[in-house]
Amino acid sequence: MAPHHGTPEAARAERAAMQRAIELAARGLGATSPNPVVGCVVLDAAGRPVGEGWHQRAGGPHAEIHALAEAGDDARGGTAVVTLEPCDHSGRTGPCTRALIDAGVARVVYAVADPNPGAAGGARTLAAAGISVEGGLHADEAAAGNAAWLTAVLHHRPHVTWKYAATLDGRTAAADGSSRWITSREARADVHRLRAASDAVLVGSGTARADDPHLAVRGVPGAVQPLRVVLDTEAAVVRPGARVLDDAAPTLVAVAKDADTTALDGAAEILRLPRGAREGPHADGADGSGRPGDRRPGLDLGALLAALYARGVRSVLLEGGGTLAGAFVAAGLVDRVVGYLAPVLLGAGPSALGEAGISTIAQALRLTVSGTERLGPDLRITAVGHPAPPARAGHRPSTTANEES
Amino acid sequence: MAPHHGTPEAARAERAAMQRAIELAARGLGATSPNPVVGCVVLDAAGRPVGEGWHQRAGGPHAEIHALAEAGDDARGGTAVVTLEPCDHSGRTGPCTRALIDAGVARVVYAVADPNPGAAGGARTLAAAGISVEGGLHADEAAAGNAAWLTAVLHHRPHVTWKYAATLDGRTAAADGSSRWITSREARADVHRLRAASDAVLVGSGTARADDPHLAVRGVPGAVQPLRVVLDTEAAVVRPGARVLDDAAPTLVAVAKDADTTALDGAAEILRLPRGAREGPHADGADGSGRPGDRRPGLDLGALLAALYARGVRSVLLEGGGTLAGAFVAAGLVDRVVGYLAPVLLGAGPSALGEAGISTIAQALRLTVSGTERLGPDLRITAVGHPAPPARAGHRPSTTANEES
Repeated sequence: MAPHHGTPEAARAERAAMQRAIELAARGLGATSPNPVVGCVVLDAAGRPVGEGWHQRAGGPHAEIHALAEAGDDARGGTAVVTLEPCDHSGRTGPCTRALIDAGVARVVYAVADPNPGAAGGARTLAAAGISVEGGLHADEAAAGNAAWLTAVLHHRPHVTWKYAATLDGRTAAADGSSRWITSREARADVHRLRAASDAVLVGSGTARADDPHLAVRGVPGAVQPLRVVLDTEAAVVRPGARVLDDAAPTLVAVAKDADTTALDGAAEILRLPRGAREGPHADGADGSGRPGDRRPGLDLGALLAALYARGVRSVLLEGGGTLAGAFVAAGLVDRVVGYLAPVLLGAGPSALGEAGISTIAQALRLTVSGTERLGPDLRITAVGHPAPPARAGHRPSTTANEES
Repeated sequence: MAPHHGTPEAARAERAAMQRAIELAARGLGATSPNPVVGCVVLDAAGRPVGEGWHQRAGGPHAEIHALAEAGDDARGGTAVVTLEPCDHSGRTGPCTRALIDAGVARVVYAVADPNPGAAGGARTLAAAGISVEGGLHADEAAAGNAAWLTAVLHHRPHVTWKYAATLDGRTAAADGSSRWITSREARADVHRLRAASDAVLVGSGTARADDPHLAVRGVPGAVQPLRVVLDTEAAVVRPGARVLDDAAPTLVAVAKDADTTALDGAAEILRLPRGAREGPHADGADGSGRPGDRRPGLDLGALLAALYARGVRSVLLEGGGTLAGAFVAAGLVDRVVGYLAPVLLGAGPSALGEAGISTIAQALRLTVSGTERLGPDLRITAVGHPAPPARAGHRPSTTANEES
């Protein structure tokens, strides 16, 4: 006998199913853009889980389709529990509303309403078909799991995570530049998971010159490689043979419109961008390289993110040095910070975050700690901000817009 | 019927009693020096707790005396569970071994053996009186609770905790020097608990000049005020009327042997110390004050700690700025770090830790995280080191002695 919808037993089963659906959704991180991550659990008429699925990659079936396929006839009279409002549009995979109606589910419970104008209306269509529909269950948690996509939909730019690894006193290297290794093997492995969950990984030319980084994901089974992006404003650093140009993952070298890229011809895909404001930190990290004299403006970060968005990138991981991060903070373009802190003291050396246009405490960028975790001997601290409107080219929005009240 | 010693029931009761005794001991932190903190639970012959006590202040009764008094006749045939090996010497309060024998306890379980030559032998005396004696129960945890005193006994200097409050990017103030407030009310209240658990609180002249700090404990009921110590090498900063010279707590101004203290005559107790090595950070934080030109050596930190030890100080809390902390790190004199980290980004401003004589990653001071706690919006991270031998005057021991293998 099916539990009547609205009984405490049914509500408990739906909450548990939503928790599971949120877990399932997270498996898609880094692989579904420009789509959201979505998880779905189908309960039969008695409230028992009979099917689950998640959106595994852009162009592939949506979460509901996977879960309904696993449930088969058991879906009839049952409940579909899904992290995002089912889509009502005929994209590459047909509307999920139609699939749910055809499967004969009696009820649909979703967490987050679809804010995308192209997809909304799913709840209305389901209700019109006589299905009991409820939204908002575990909405905050589901939204946090979909933060990148929701930010992108809202601001028409990718969600930006700044990742850094530092000592307790905030240094990313010793005075002589040595930094291998400040953090542990466990922390470094976690960085690869963070890359795997991102659509693009970004460094500046300072880091490219100093470290010749590879930036691909290693050691994460099944990971979709992120787009590797190097900001090399003057096209002066990335050269054929750089590790970032191997075929482990696609790579984009972002340069100024007027940069001479002859040396890179045929070796890398080039993205030409306008330069940003004359003052302010040089976005590509060249200031951090120790090479003085180059004071031409860096790339316009708003234009960079717009170009990445147009390519389907919905989440960007900043892995550059403090100068690059400072430029993003100054532009109000950091949505999340993931800090790997090692219980190490140095007392000298480069700071994790460089000049960010903040001169007094009232202008500080205030975030909210959303999680802490021990990784071997180290700590991982995650903090999230309240996203500001996208920066306009040549303007630096006041970071006070991000302050806590 | 009494459980036979060695039965699982008796062992369980003893472990629970030791956990409780460790909690009780911690209540004495900051009030017992030069004695250790000690907690004691007395179990009756059936294994039930019938008395508890802790060493509340130097000169007062030991933990065992309090616990035996509460237990009364119920102690006969029972077990005394105590965090430190009972003393066998006749100090101001008489030996605890005698009190335990007189009370008729059948068994004594302690955690940590007394390393103090003047007190050792308690276990032997008890066993000679026919009492069953066992040491080592929860020894690591009890030793951690008594870390200050154990460090002091071992190294003949006070245990040193460096406390700092910083942003995620390691800044203690913004570029213009403003810092009120980086951390939350909850974090600042916790600092007062840290002060209350310390025998002395120490700042350099840079902090004294910039902040005119008070350094007394506020808002901690029953707290014993710590000794306030200002390192003012040239006797150039602390002046009558300074907040640190009020009568809320005792205060010591440490100056160089050759400093002119005329301006302080009668206003503060003066401690004259030799100067340290010519090179290296100026220990009193004057380098951090923005006053250039003074390059005379700072105070000898080993001599400072020796003088404080001679006054009965067993735990010191460093609250100065990055320059003072850097000098202590450089001298290998930091035993514990307590960092209050606010989810705030600044990108500029003074770093939490200044020059510490570390130039390359292999010389980094590596600690072990011993705890993390959320305090309102902030995080508290505690990390402990492996104490190095005390620094000799004029020599800076290699900090590589503290590296993890």
